[in-house]
Amino acid sequence: MDKGLLVVISGPSGAGKGTIYQQVIERTGMKRSVSVTTRKPRPGEVEGVSYYFRTEEEYQQMIAAGEFLETAEVYNNYYGTPKAPVFENLERGYDVLFEVDVHGAKSIKKKYVDAITIFVMTPDFEVLEERLKGRGTETESSLKTRLGAAKRELGKYEMFDYIVFNESIDQAVKDVLDIINAEKRKVKNNLSVITALLGNNQQ
Amino acid sequence: MDKGLLVVISGPSGAGKGTIYQQVIERTGMKRSVSVTTRKPRPGEVEGVSYYFRTEEEYQQMIAAGEFLETAEVYNNYYGTPKAPVFENLERGYDVLFEVDVHGAKSIKKKYVDAITIFVMTPDFEVLEERLKGRGTETESSLKTRLGAAKRELGKYEMFDYIVFNESIDQAVKDVLDIINAEKRKVKNNLSVITALLGNNQQ
Repeated sequence: MDKGLLVVISGPSGAGKGTIYQQVIERTGMKRSVSVTTRKPRPGEVEGVSYYFRTEEEYQQMIAAGEFLETAEVYNNYYGTPKAPVFENLERGYDVLFEVDVHGAKSIKKKYVDAITIFVMTPDFEVLEERLKGRGTETESSLKTRLGAAKRELGKYEMFDYIVFNESIDQAVKDVLDIINAEKRKVKNNLSVITALLGNNQQ
Repeated sequence: MDKGLLVVISGPSGAGKGTIYQQVIERTGMKRSVSVTTRKPRPGEVEGVSYYFRTEEEYQQMIAAGEFLETAEVYNNYYGTPKAPVFENLERGYDVLFEVDVHGAKSIKKKYVDAITIFVMTPDFEVLEERLKGRGTETESSLKTRLGAAKRELGKYEMFDYIVFNESIDQAVKDVLDIINAEKRKVKNNLSVITALLGNNQQ
């Protein structure tokens, strides 16, 4: 059996990567990665399902032991992707899907070179601005910050394998599903099947 | 504008590459490549549409001038793919689709390294044998020859980017369409769009 695929969906805030991620998970049954966090559990959150909840001391020990694919600090809490459960899923042939920011995508690609990285972008920056405004949560200043960050993130296009322009959610989800299906059809991801076929037909 | 894609569908006789090729052409409007041949025109065949008809002397001159992407001799006639019209289409941003045997695929990949090569195979060799028998045109001896050739062709899997197992025509056509769509989403095939986006947003 060939290993599963590790697929990373990334892109700027407002481009729609979260929605695409959810729909691709629902349609494919791909494995999610459960993050580790130092944030306190909220009502209803379940250890090992929502997150792995750890103290800051435990978290720092995991960092020191190199147990993360990527880790980030957000508003004084840490969030990270533990390597072990992801690699176990891949070895068992399961595909794993991630939604992370560009910094996280870079970190994952560095630690797992076979990761398939997809950058999700709006058709242009004007559309991104409209979508961010549409959220109604951005000040003029935070909007400017986000647009500046988006441009810097797109500037890192060379570290991504694919770029999906999110003109509509249906089209963007289809693009991501097509990319995953195409990757599953790569010869290098079918070596066990091919060699079995050749081996079973020695004449 | 980015260049078009050159996509090559190949695989053993009986695997279904011709049917898949026709359906992908119909659904995508990709450009066909028109072959050059030394065979005499049949009734209804049109110069420049069915084939470019050339004398053997003219054909040999084209070979000598390096004008072919691939060339083969079949039953004392030559068939070849001329480079110039293919490269013109690619430069204009049109995608071009080929259906060739494994030898031709190898030749094309050698002369155009960005060619995307897809190997079409039946789910196993038993199914291939059934399909060849189903044609009703194979003798016991020619069947054995074709199956031996099919095995040798699959043995060249390393020169192909993708492998599509033709369980049903609909699924195999979808796989090829997904591969083409995924390739169109590759960052390296969107550099002009990406740099235009970045360039238009200098702040």
